[in-house]
Amino acid sequence: MSNNAGPVRHARMRERNLGVVLAEVVRHQPVTRARLADLTGFTKTTVSNLLAVLADAGLVRDGGLVHEGERGRPGVAVSVDGDGTAGLGLEINVDYLAACVIDLGRRVRHRHLVAADNRGRSAEAVIEALARLAEQALASATEQGLIVAGAVVALPGLLDRERGLLRRAPNLGWTDAPAGDLLRAGLPPLRLPADQDNEANLAALGELWFGAGRQLGDFVHVSGEIGIGAGIVVDGQVFRGAHGYAGELGHFVVEPGGALCACGGRGCLEQTAGQEAILRAAGLTELTATSAAGTDGSLSALITLLEAGDARALAAVTRAGEALGSTLASVVNLLDPDTVVLGGIFSPLAPWARPAVERALAEGSGTLRGSVPPVVVSGLAGGAAVLGAAGLVLDRIVADPALLL
Amino acid sequence: MSNNAGPVRHARMRERNLGVVLAEVVRHQPVTRARLADLTGFTKTTVSNLLAVLADAGLVRDGGLVHEGERGRPGVAVSVDGDGTAGLGLEINVDYLAACVIDLGRRVRHRHLVAADNRGRSAEAVIEALARLAEQALASATEQGLIVAGAVVALPGLLDRERGLLRRAPNLGWTDAPAGDLLRAGLPPLRLPADQDNEANLAALGELWFGAGRQLGDFVHVSGEIGIGAGIVVDGQVFRGAHGYAGELGHFVVEPGGALCACGGRGCLEQTAGQEAILRAAGLTELTATSAAGTDGSLSALITLLEAGDARALAAVTRAGEALGSTLASVVNLLDPDTVVLGGIFSPLAPWARPAVERALAEGSGTLRGSVPPVVVSGLAGGAAVLGAAGLVLDRIVADPALLL
Repeated sequence: MSNNAGPVRHARMRERNLGVVLAEVVRHQPVTRARLADLTGFTKTTVSNLLAVLADAGLVRDGGLVHEGERGRPGVAVSVDGDGTAGLGLEINVDYLAACVIDLGRRVRHRHLVAADNRGRSAEAVIEALARLAEQALASATEQGLIVAGAVVALPGLLDRERGLLRRAPNLGWTDAPAGDLLRAGLPPLRLPADQDNEANLAALGELWFGAGRQLGDFVHVSGEIGIGAGIVVDGQVFRGAHGYAGELGHFVVEPGGALCACGGRGCLEQTAGQEAILRAAGLTELTATSAAGTDGSLSALITLLEAGDARALAAVTRAGEALGSTLASVVNLLDPDTVVLGGIFSPLAPWARPAVERALAEGSGTLRGSVPPVVVSGLAGGAAVLGAAGLVLDRIVADPALLL
Repeated sequence: MSNNAGPVRHARMRERNLGVVLAEVVRHQPVTRARLADLTGFTKTTVSNLLAVLADAGLVRDGGLVHEGERGRPGVAVSVDGDGTAGLGLEINVDYLAACVIDLGRRVRHRHLVAADNRGRSAEAVIEALARLAEQALASATEQGLIVAGAVVALPGLLDRERGLLRRAPNLGWTDAPAGDLLRAGLPPLRLPADQDNEANLAALGELWFGAGRQLGDFVHVSGEIGIGAGIVVDGQVFRGAHGYAGELGHFVVEPGGALCACGGRGCLEQTAGQEAILRAAGLTELTATSAAGTDGSLSALITLLEAGDARALAAVTRAGEALGSTLASVVNLLDPDTVVLGGIFSPLAPWARPAVERALAEGSGTLRGSVPPVVVSGLAGGAAVLGAAGLVLDRIVADPALLL
């Protein structure tokens, strides 16, 4: 073995260096080879060799000229190849499925959301439906000349990522579903094996990469649908906890001894501020697969009532906002983030819910801290997780482009 | 400037290398120069030169022989100098002051706790009393031949560490106290300027360095006294939040609209599970400076009642445990730690409080997660923060021994 150490080490170093150069292209594009040599400390020849490998893999391309400095001839610019490699984001949520394709230039090339009541359906059946959405997305990507390198699937529950096990998705009724194996077996095969992550984490990454981004600082992103989750972003990374279960905001107890929750507990935040709880309190029919209304339908019905000043709807959303705000006060006291982001259903409901959220948040944390983190409304709403999923594919490739070699 | 870049860079590199070698001595002591050369990748000559500088600074010393490998002569062992440099830990808490001296070998050389009701006293007056404790500690260290390099002070409140401002210490009644300036002016001068940190963070570090340590994995350490704080340890580091205010567990609302708290809120955890709240609920007189009982006195009185099976005392501690447990359930749902550690007053109260804590924690998080993190009782009890404070001085020196050159 020992006489192989040299070449092995050399190959690994080249792999690492590919990632170093690609990261600088992503950060500074369009950028010349000369500037890349400055940025990385590599020679121009090394930079050119590494770029050639990255171009062959559909990751970068030459295009246009850029002036750098005040004198001299313009250099040939290198950019990421927005028409080469792409990532597929997929999402299984309680009442919808979603897919999107994002190219390496971070443009959304395809996006599709289908209302579907997945409660009580088997993981196999749901993944079969998801596979059809994935196939459509891949066809659309191929038509546009893109090569989809891999997929990440957003799942609404506690995920054991190492074992690919969806330990608990109370709102789907799934326990210990072998999500990783099922997805790899059920989805169309891609260059990289399909991966999965928690929807709340991916929604926070979606907001970081495709929403308000770095200006949020450290933030807690609330992704409310039927369930309520939080994605905690610290220094541009998702905080996952010791087993990957961090961010389970929906099961904070806001009403001790209150309504029974799908998790087995009582008085959980979801029972007051989850989508179903709000619709029910507003007097709207419970969502069913046969209502054919889907997420947007029921939510639209609620918003119509809110816009008309319906007292029951306003009371339901205010109460949800208060429960969410006092829960967020505890989160702020514990984690001290720069910003709180309202995503998911709380984004379209913000005009009515935000005042209550802010009031309860200030009451529960403001007196102690002297200031309350701003509550920002996500522009991505429910679409954040699937964007984050596609973004995570690209993020992994940029971190280690050798995955595609 | 540019012709200085070489030597400047070289000096910085030597400073960094001193830290690299010292860290390896701390980790592997007693250790030979040959082993240190292996561990660091430096030549034996470089290692010897760096060790000479560290020995002059009172940080390492030769002593004894160690056998490494199966053959060959034993080498001269290098260890940290347990009789050279030491750190001074100080603590201002609501009802006591504390000081301790710890040498670089992590032995506690001096320890002193004085009951003192600091509520309503000015920061200046309290720091004057703390300075007397510090002088006694320094005298004791000098007698033992130690050189105390610096001090860290544990403070019970929200601390703006950059500006040295104790923003809010509700139980002391202090707001925007210029703790940094006052401490530097009031305490005996040392080689390194006095620094301050939140007591809950330091208690968690005390547990990490002098208590159960690494076997806890990622943990949340509850440090309950009059107030209740949490120190969150992730990957061996304290999680501080965006402004250093993370871990304010005591102001989680456990009883909406409940008793008024010193923070201005209502129904905070401290109003059910703080020391005063428990003593009051148990029918024990409120702690006053004139009672001369101090922390231990009142707590001892409570424990005497508990041991005698006093129903009111048992109910008070059970209720406190339940409130703490349900708060910790939210913390576990949000942060997913490996372990929960009960420190501060919850350590001596554990025989009576822990069952209630565990029950409420399991109820609020177990059904969802399928398992509940173990609840461990700190062996350090209320002494953790001042140990952590002294440890932090040593930790900083090991990270950057050039501070002492």
